[in-house]
Amino acid sequence: MQRTSVGRDIAAKPVAVAPVLRRTPTCRIAPGRADRSTRNHSAPALVAKAPASSHVESNGAHSAPVPAPASTSRDASDAAASSALSANLLLICPDQKGVIAAVSQLLYGFGCNIVASDQFTDSSSSMFFQRITFDFSEIVIGPGNTAVLERAIAELANRFNMKWKISYTNKVKRMAVLVSKQDHCLYDLLIRHRSGELRCEIPLIISNHPDLKHIADTFDVPFVHLPLDKNNKEAQEEALEKLLKDEKIDVVILARYMQIFTQGFCERHWEHTINIHHSFLPAFEGARPYHRAHERGVKIIGATAHFATAELDAGPIIDQAVARITHRDNVEDMIRKGRDLERMVLARAVRWHLDDRVMVYNNKTVVFED
Amino acid sequence: MQRTSVGRDIAAKPVAVAPVLRRTPTCRIAPGRADRSTRNHSAPALVAKAPASSHVESNGAHSAPVPAPASTSRDASDAAASSALSANLLLICPDQKGVIAAVSQLLYGFGCNIVASDQFTDSSSSMFFQRITFDFSEIVIGPGNTAVLERAIAELANRFNMKWKISYTNKVKRMAVLVSKQDHCLYDLLIRHRSGELRCEIPLIISNHPDLKHIADTFDVPFVHLPLDKNNKEAQEEALEKLLKDEKIDVVILARYMQIFTQGFCERHWEHTINIHHSFLPAFEGARPYHRAHERGVKIIGATAHFATAELDAGPIIDQAVARITHRDNVEDMIRKGRDLERMVLARAVRWHLDDRVMVYNNKTVVFED
Amino acid sequence: MQRTSVGRDIAAKPVAVAPVLRRTPTCRIAPGRADRSTRNHSAPALVAKAPASSHVESNGAHSAPVPAPASTSRDASDAAASSALSANLLLICPDQKGVIAAVSQLLYGFGCNIVASDQFTDSSSSMFFQRITFDFSEIVIGPGNTAVLERAIAELANRFNMKWKISYTNKVKRMAVLVSKQDHCLYDLLIRHRSGELRCEIPLIISNHPDLKHIADTFDVPFVHLPLDKNNKEAQEEALEKLLKDEKIDVVILARYMQIFTQGFCERHWEHTINIHHSFLPAFEGARPYHRAHERGVKIIGATAHFATAELDAGPIIDQAVARITHRDNVEDMIRKGRDLERMVLARAVRWHLDDRVMVYNNKTVVFED
Amino acid sequence: MQRTSVGRDIAAKPVAVAPVLRRTPTCRIAPGRADRSTRNHSAPALVAKAPASSHVESNGAHSAPVPAPASTSRDASDAAASSALSANLLLICPDQKGVIAAVSQLLYGFGCNIVASDQFTDSSSSMFFQRITFDFSEIVIGPGNTAVLERAIAELANRFNMKWKISYTNKVKRMAVLVSKQDHCLYDLLIRHRSGELRCEIPLIISNHPDLKHIADTFDVPFVHLPLDKNNKEAQEEALEKLLKDEKIDVVILARYMQIFTQGFCERHWEHTINIHHSFLPAFEGARPYHRAHERGVKIIGATAHFATAELDAGPIIDQAVARITHRDNVEDMIRKGRDLERMVLARAVRWHLDDRVMVYNNKTVVFED
Repeated sequence: MQRTSVGRDIAAKPVAVAPVLRRTPTCRIAPGRADRSTRNHSAPALVAKAPASSHVESNGAHSAPVPAPASTSRDASDAAASSALSANLLLICPDQKGVIAAVSQLLYGFGCNIVASDQFTDSSSSMFFQRITFDFSEIVIGPGNTAVLERAIAELANRFNMKWKISYTNKVKRMAVLVSKQDHCLYDLLIRHRSGELRCEIPLIISNHPDLKHIADTFDVPFVHLPLDKNNKEAQEEALEKLLKDEKIDVVILARYMQIFTQGFCERHWEHTINIHHSFLPAFEGARPYHRAHERGVKIIGATAHFATAELDAGPIIDQAVARITHRDNVEDMIRKGRDLERMVLARAVRWHLDDRVMVYNNKTVVFED
Repeated sequence: MQRTSVGRDIAAKPVAVAPVLRRTPTCRIAPGRADRSTRNHSAPALVAKAPASSHVESNGAHSAPVPAPASTSRDASDAAASSALSANLLLICPDQKGVIAAVSQLLYGFGCNIVASDQFTDSSSSMFFQRITFDFSEIVIGPGNTAVLERAIAELANRFNMKWKISYTNKVKRMAVLVSKQDHCLYDLLIRHRSGELRCEIPLIISNHPDLKHIADTFDVPFVHLPLDKNNKEAQEEALEKLLKDEKIDVVILARYMQIFTQGFCERHWEHTINIHHSFLPAFEGARPYHRAHERGVKIIGATAHFATAELDAGPIIDQAVARITHRDNVEDMIRKGRDLERMVLARAVRWHLDDRVMVYNNKTVVFED
Repeated sequence: MQRTSVGRDIAAKPVAVAPVLRRTPTCRIAPGRADRSTRNHSAPALVAKAPASSHVESNGAHSAPVPAPASTSRDASDAAASSALSANLLLICPDQKGVIAAVSQLLYGFGCNIVASDQFTDSSSSMFFQRITFDFSEIVIGPGNTAVLERAIAELANRFNMKWKISYTNKVKRMAVLVSKQDHCLYDLLIRHRSGELRCEIPLIISNHPDLKHIADTFDVPFVHLPLDKNNKEAQEEALEKLLKDEKIDVVILARYMQIFTQGFCERHWEHTINIHHSFLPAFEGARPYHRAHERGVKIIGATAHFATAELDAGPIIDQAVARITHRDNVEDMIRKGRDLERMVLARAVRWHLDDRVMVYNNKTVVFED
Repeated sequence: MQRTSVGRDIAAKPVAVAPVLRRTPTCRIAPGRADRSTRNHSAPALVAKAPASSHVESNGAHSAPVPAPASTSRDASDAAASSALSANLLLICPDQKGVIAAVSQLLYGFGCNIVASDQFTDSSSSMFFQRITFDFSEIVIGPGNTAVLERAIAELANRFNMKWKISYTNKVKRMAVLVSKQDHCLYDLLIRHRSGELRCEIPLIISNHPDLKHIADTFDVPFVHLPLDKNNKEAQEEALEKLLKDEKIDVVILARYMQIFTQGFCERHWEHTINIHHSFLPAFEGARPYHRAHERGVKIIGATAHFATAELDAGPIIDQAVARITHRDNVEDMIRKGRDLERMVLARAVRWHLDDRVMVYNNKTVVFED
């Protein structure tokens, strides 16, 4: 039962990140938790054209990976035990000679062992993407001093005009699940989490309805009911954001939450917020997709997991799945069959995001599947 | 957009049809083969709200199935050999008690053996659909007198407000394939035809470009080049319709023909005209779907076979198929992978249509798959 | 290995069952509830070597469908509410003219409305299979007197050498789930049941280990721990059979139970016992299929739901599903991906079986999918 | 229309290769044409039990990639035009620190640009696999002197105990297709080749029957009829091997050839010989798999492309695909549906092999899919 846990973002932690960020201002290597300190200083938005960084580029001992100790998560401790000390490094830069050599040489020089590497060059944009998993248990500067490694990476990044992000797998990401009344995706995530498929902690389930509290109770996860009506939308969102901040949430999953956020919320959070939509986008964006699919007479239905950007159902697609239907399937059958698609696709997207396998560029994703 | 289409039939119409039919004793079953004489006499519209019957209700020996004789097609003779004397009966009527009993009793009374039967009740429209394949080799009135059977069916149809259509499997449908410059769907149809998968004759390949003539030659199929430019669209369509009529074409396949017909042509022919569109409709209707799919960053591409109604890419969907893609697939890869989808889906739709397995109602299909 | 199995039932076995049945009016028609009275009178065998009847041929008021009242199951009452009074009739007989006409005429004569019908003629064995769903709310003899209808069916069955079985949809089947230590299939069945996907009651979860009791508790289902070791196999099976009998279980699901039953148990129960095997049978029968699949280097893994006959993993296959894997997937990944296959396939097979959609002949299934 | 063509094997050429090979005697980086000169000098075994070498490790100007000149293949010339000068490097060695850094540094040092790279570490065997595509148009030693690069790679390979193989994409592989009477796979390969999907030349179609000569004629490919009967098996195989040698064949495709080779032939050729088997292996190895699948009552059929080793249907699996079937599908339907699987799977395997994407280890494949 080998499991590796995935590190919580560190820069997240304390201060002094902004200066570093200033040096790579256009960065947006997606799958990242928003930098809180930056945000507190009214950092620019975190999306698309946003100048703010979503990567981790800390410069102090605070960024040192901790020995995965106090985690209450079964996965996390298992992971720490099995995978010793490893990290995921995500890179994006203009395609050019020598990048791979430089990065692998740097890691080798530090005594790190590259365990897995996946890369992609997008010929239309001439951009280069890479994900490297490396073991740093024998890092020459000592595993407590990864900040030194990060400084070296930052310098190299500067040279290649590279945006980057590092996650230490012994720091477990914290994930909040937002739901409404439908339970299938929530159940699915909780069961997969319990089985060790999802490397994260789930400290929080939030809903605009109280209906699913009993499920949260069953799995011993705190449940917060944030009622929502026409008049309290902004206040509810504020309460929600406060919760995310207080609980140091790294990833937000909209497990059939069925509510639309304000543009501001989306711009601040889309990079770590995954929604499941019940159609094969871009077909049937918006409401009641199964009804419209039935009306159109399609022979295939689908589900799509995507980042929840401000434009409804138009965010970068992480994964999709489909199922054949026939004339015999009425809307109820489609809803039933769709539930299986929704939970499979959402689980896959969540898993990949937690494992730092999803990068975003030009509103599209590069997914280094496992 | 309510349309019923258990094919269309001419005999159904009114007058003056029989003489023509008498002169063309082989063939005419097919879903919606255009009625030549009727059309010439400005018959009422055949689509949408057309009050016309869609069943076959011939009344003379001319309708007697012929013993599948002079066919040069391997399939045809195979079929005739194996299936002896059988027919497909398609029914559609308001759902009501006793329909199944009445129809099966009638066939039994005539000494016919029901070989296969498939049915469907659409609860939203309360319509009942049925496809019955029966063997009439031992029909009590003699297999040369199926007209008597048809009259009995017509009476029963009257009682149940039923539209119907009958096809005798020893009468081989005649199919024209329209192509442009891409060859993969044409090759596929010709190879499947030669292997016996498609029960039809292919007496005609038509194209607006001469490029694929060599393929037609290889398979010994007459090839007609009907050039098309801005100024000759109507004339070209007229020439096309004349060809379809002269060659007694029952089914038209747009195998990446890539041209849009006039509304009039569509209204006259949609019921027996199948198009392959290279996306999972309704996503990416219209031009350059792969390019748009690439731009949107979808993780699944598709292809859709549908009847070619006047509204572009909005006709009743017969079948769809999809394939997973990743960020590594550029537009050329998508085109390549899409070719496999297109030919698989088109072949399936053609096969089902030739086997009288597709019924249309409310712009949606009921497909009794094999 | 010729077997016909429109299910057989155990409760059926012993004596004096009828009185009990009279006292439990909500009872459990189920796949192949055996006709007790008939069997007591040593009715002629309907299955290969099985002495028991596989059809329902009751002849008393006890067989009258009750108005689905006292059910505590959400599904059950939903079903009763929505489907008013309907029944599924399963038929199998040698192929011959007039069967369909006779059956549909009979139902029509009684004032029943055929809601759905599916049929199949197996050309190799010349056997005819049919599943008819009919509404009998307006049956001319009154819905409380279906025994009269059944007598008429029995007579007709005699004429056509037909085996048959009838299930009234307002009588909810009772399903027991047997598990060991793995929880994914159990969770899946319970969640689907709660969502209304599975039309049954689940009064019993049985396990040879205590590990999953907490799940049973969560869903308020009684959990019985029947420990198993080398020395108590027979005693454990006896206890198990007693439980099934006492709880009037109609369907047994082996949700990764991982134990092999005695031949006697299989022979008595296989027709209503569904197992999930974690490979695409017949590849990798027996133990550790994922390990063997990994060793062989297959590119696709699968799962198979089948009836649990005496020969290991060789029973009639109800459904299968597969997933692509690559060289990157180690055994643990295959186990993880396989869990999704297992629960999807098992759920589908269970659903179809509960809806009387599965017939067995010659160790193969005819599945009239929904 | 960017296409890269894949280089013909160089060692293939003439002289002096053996000495180099001697330094890496256990090499068997799979799918490679056997080195003829080496074989003649009884070089140490490079494959499991095979005496032939499969890698390219030439050390003279003869190995210099030629400027894609005389190729009559449309693809090849296109490729040469578009992809300038690129090569695929395949590596396999025990997993260890620094391999990636060393290789990428070496290529960078020579002025080569890594265009694509894929790697895999098999944790069970602790072996490391890598495929690197690099552009060497600006190689510092001049593109005519790749032998120098190869010597450097050989030295590095020595250090890491690495087996390796290099293919220059402007040297087009030569592929022979062996067929019997069934035409669907042959048609498919020829059509895909013509459309540019398969980067190779097809100078030869060989069959034990004359039936498909007309297809070879249509596509202007030489067709050789090598009749086979009980008494001439060895002589026929000798003639076949002579043809493969005379025509400098790099890849042999058994496109439903349906004959079993001698063990000696398999041992000499398996690494570049791909067979398509019409079942999802390991289910239904051997003869008549569709008949046996029908008899077993499976719900899914499949096809498998694999290297043709001496043990029947037990070679390393390259790809598999499956399709759902139902009880309605008889053996003929399965054969028909299977044809689509066979040609899809075979085409994919051939494409990957031609693009140097398939590596073999422990009778399993590592496939770096495109």
